[in-house]
Amino acid sequence: MTVPPSERTRLRRKPARGAYDRETIDAILDEALVAHLGIAIDGQPYVIPTLHARVGDTVYLHGSAGSRTLRALASGTPACLTVTLLDGLVLARSALHHSVNYRSVVVLGQAVPVTDTHERLAALRTFMERIVPGRFGEVRAPSEADARVTGVLSMSLAEASAKLRTGPPLDDAQDYALDVWAGVIPLRMQAGAPIPDPRLAPDIEPSAKIESWLRERA
Amino acid sequence: MTVPPSERTRLRRKPARGAYDRETIDAILDEALVAHLGIAIDGQPYVIPTLHARVGDTVYLHGSAGSRTLRALASGTPACLTVTLLDGLVLARSALHHSVNYRSVVVLGQAVPVTDTHERLAALRTFMERIVPGRFGEVRAPSEADARVTGVLSMSLAEASAKLRTGPPLDDAQDYALDVWAGVIPLRMQAGAPIPDPRLAPDIEPSAKIESWLRERA
Repeated sequence: MTVPPSERTRLRRKPARGAYDRETIDAILDEALVAHLGIAIDGQPYVIPTLHARVGDTVYLHGSAGSRTLRALASGTPACLTVTLLDGLVLARSALHHSVNYRSVVVLGQAVPVTDTHERLAALRTFMERIVPGRFGEVRAPSEADARVTGVLSMSLAEASAKLRTGPPLDDAQDYALDVWAGVIPLRMQAGAPIPDPRLAPDIEPSAKIESWLRERA
Repeated sequence: MTVPPSERTRLRRKPARGAYDRETIDAILDEALVAHLGIAIDGQPYVIPTLHARVGDTVYLHGSAGSRTLRALASGTPACLTVTLLDGLVLARSALHHSVNYRSVVVLGQAVPVTDTHERLAALRTFMERIVPGRFGEVRAPSEADARVTGVLSMSLAEASAKLRTGPPLDDAQDYALDVWAGVIPLRMQAGAPIPDPRLAPDIEPSAKIESWLRERA
C-alpha cells in the first residue's frame, strides 16, 4: 500500500531519500518509542516529546486531558507528528560529509479526540503492548476513572511520509584516496538489567514476557 | 547558572518535572545526537529531525542552504528545537501508570543565519567533534566551497527549559499490594562494531580516537 504524497509531504530536498509506502511508514512508527509532536500557537511552534501507538491507519496520542497541548489539539489546531530512529553514525573522509543513518516518519493532520469508549480502551491497550508485549494482561486494567483523566487523540496516516538514510558515507571523488578510516558505526537502543521498584516485594520476579523482551534487546 | 523561565517555557503541567538550570540543559543538549526542529508555515507545523551542536549559549543547526526550512528560518520564522533522551521504560502495576524515564530540552526562539566565517567554521567543527571527539583533526577540513553550500544557523539558549522524569513507577496506593513486577528497564544507545566503507583500502583501521569512543559505548 502506498500513500500518494501530498504537496506538503512530498520531499523537496534529496527526493531519493523519500519513501511513501505504508509498510515502511508503519515499521518506523511501530519501532520508535517516542514521537515529537508539533503544534503552533499564535505562530510559535512547540515541539513536545510524547508516546504514540499505531493501530491500522491511525496513530494514537495520549496525555493529561487538561493540558494546554491537548486542548489546542482538540480544538482542531494542525499538528505534525515526527518519529526518528537513529541507526548509525556515518564517518566520511571529509568533515562536511559526516552524517547519520536514520529512519523518520512525518505525519501531518489534525489530532481528533477519541470519544468512543471501546476505541479509547483499545488505544490505551496498544500503548502498553508497545512498551512490553503481553504486559497489558499482567497489570491492573484501566478503570473508568483512569480513562476519564487520560485524553486520547487520533491522527490519520493519510498524509504521512518516511525519509531515511542508509549505507556508507558518500565522499567527494578526490577524497577516496585519503588515508582516513571511513564507514558506519551502527547504533541501537539497548536494554539494561531491570531495576526493581524499591517498594516491590522481594519475591516478585519479572514475568516471562519481560524476560523475553529483555533478551531481544540485551 | 539558571535561565529564568519565560511565560512560554514555564511548565504548566507537573511543574516538579521542570528544570531551568543551564548545567542540566547543556548536558542534555550535548548528549543528544538528534534534535527535532519545529517551524510553522501558514499555521501548519513541520517537525524535522536535524543535527545540532551547542557552543556556550548557542545551539547551531546546519543544512542545505537552499532548503525550504532553512529559508523559512532565515526569514525570521519562530522556531522550536527539542531534544529528548530516552532513559528507561517505567513498568507500573496498573496499565495507566506505565511511563518512560526521559530528559528533554525545549528551546524557543529564532534561528539566525551565521554569516561570520570564523563562527561558521567553529560551528562546523563542533558538529564533527560531537559525533566522534578528535575526528575533525583526522579528516579533510571544510573548503570554502563546502562552507558556501552549507547553511549554519544559531539559536540562543535564552529561552530554554528542561523536563525530565526519573525514578520508579508511581502507582495508586491500593495497587502496591498487587502481585505484579514493577520497576524500570534502563535504556541506552549502544554502538556496534564499525562497518568499513566498501571503498575503504583494507589496510586502513579505525583511529585510536574512534576505538576509544567505541569502548565507551560498547
